Amino acid sequence: MIVIGEKINGSIPSVGKAIAEKNEELIKDLARKQTEANSTYIDVCASVEEDIEVETMKWLLDLVQGVTDTPIAVDSPSPDVIVKCLPFCKKEGLVNSVSMEGDKVDKIFPVIADTNWEVVALLCDDTGIPQTAEKRLSVFADLMKKAEEYHIDPSRIHIDPLIEMLCTSEDGIKMVVDVMTEIKRQYPTIHITGAVSNISFNLPARRIVNMAFTVLAMNSGLDSAIFDPLNADLMGLIYATEALLGQDDYCMEYISAYREGIFGQKK
Amino acid sequence: MIVIGEKINGSIPSVGKAIAEKNEELIKDLARKQTEANSTYIDVCASVEEDIEVETMKWLLDLVQGVTDTPIAVDSPSPDVIVKCLPFCKKEGLVNSVSMEGDKVDKIFPVIADTNWEVVALLCDDTGIPQTAEKRLSVFADLMKKAEEYHIDPSRIHIDPLIEMLCTSEDGIKMVVDVMTEIKRQYPTIHITGAVSNISFNLPARRIVNMAFTVLAMNSGLDSAIFDPLNADLMGLIYATEALLGQDDYCMEYISAYREGIFGQKK
Repeated sequence: MIVIGEKINGSIPSVGKAIAEKNEELIKDLARKQTEANSTYIDVCASVEEDIEVETMKWLLDLVQGVTDTPIAVDSPSPDVIVKCLPFCKKEGLVNSVSMEGDKVDKIFPVIADTNWEVVALLCDDTGIPQTAEKRLSVFADLMKKAEEYHIDPSRIHIDPLIEMLCTSEDGIKMVVDVMTEIKRQYPTIHITGAVSNISFNLPARRIVNMAFTVLAMNSGLDSAIFDPLNADLMGLIYATEALLGQDDYCMEYISAYREGIFGQKK
Repeated sequence: MIVIGEKINGSIPSVGKAIAEKNEELIKDLARKQTEANSTYIDVCASVEEDIEVETMKWLLDLVQGVTDTPIAVDSPSPDVIVKCLPFCKKEGLVNSVSMEGDKVDKIFPVIADTNWEVVALLCDDTGIPQTAEKRLSVFADLMKKAEEYHIDPSRIHIDPLIEMLCTSEDGIKMVVDVMTEIKRQYPTIHITGAVSNISFNLPARRIVNMAFTVLAMNSGLDSAIFDPLNADLMGLIYATEALLGQDDYCMEYISAYREGIFGQKK
């Protein structure tokens, strides 16, 4: 599983406060802890007004890269901010994100075309979030045309099929499972990602719903996700699911992560 | 999910001690608690020498039925003991279990033929536990021939495909998933059951593996299971998985079970 550590995000109140007060230690601590928890990428999102977003991102990126070599997921709603921030990164990481909204793809794909940057792509466009599997797959087809145009290999793309809250659904997660399955069928090397905790919005005991969803989504091809890697139960569940799905012979990775204290009782 | 509460079993040391010391309160307490936790059946297994098994079962069954109306899963390795114990039950419940070993089926199927007793059937025979999906499905075919002979409807049968430990597997749970999927394809109304905690034998943090397995097995048709219903996280995960699989419109059952304190923080 490609783990995108979500904790450095200005929309989280304690992080927003740290950004406002220039509290370097809190940011560095989150970067260190997420690295120790086996994050593949550390997401960095300023969540500030756009006029100070680039300078805030530079401050955050310098702090994070001062304490860890883990590559960065450069996270902003603005494609212009993302393009300006990529040169601040010491190594290629993950762009978070593009979609078929506005000119996001046309601004970002040319910049990352001849690099090893990977990219999260959301299946929405200027009409919003499509409400059928067919329409979401049609946005996907448009996106893959653009990727081909800029020679971005599917293996560099993390498709976010857009996970929506379960509580308003009549048929559970069937639609998003259908979308994930079809995408993996068309492009076996593509990654499928998502914000797993969206599923449990408005429900009690959200961590339980998030856990069950993560297992089912992995069964349908999810191999990348943005979540809190310090959630030891969820991390353990991911290792267990990989073993159950036949991706971890004799549970070697599972046992090794347990021994490292990634989940279960700390030694 | 059909929940078979596993806690009244003489092989559990505290229960074995209670049986030896005729500690009625411990048994009654386990019966009450498993009922409150929404068990569909309360499993009763004496795990004593066969010469005192029937009298021990009678003692246990009278105690359990004195405090709860929840039907019983009459659990013994001996078909003769099971046949002798069924009349002690106030209502029809679940026979746990038959298999194609010896004369189990021929002793039990005629007794339950014209009743509403349900039955757990294990996919093993006199050669042991078949090690391929094909052979397990061949035992299943033999079993269903017997069921047809005695007019036992598939909807009264809980097939246990035999869940084995993950730690010695090279391809995860693929084989047992294939068996479950094929059985449900052939008989959509049949139940699929199992001892979910077998999967995690010899692994650390077993509860994590049990949780991930339960979700995947439910996705492949598991709709009955023997486990500890006082494990609130596992119960919550089952409700969440039913909602995710589209079996619980708008999460009504999930929310209601949470409110009853079946899982999550007690109110």
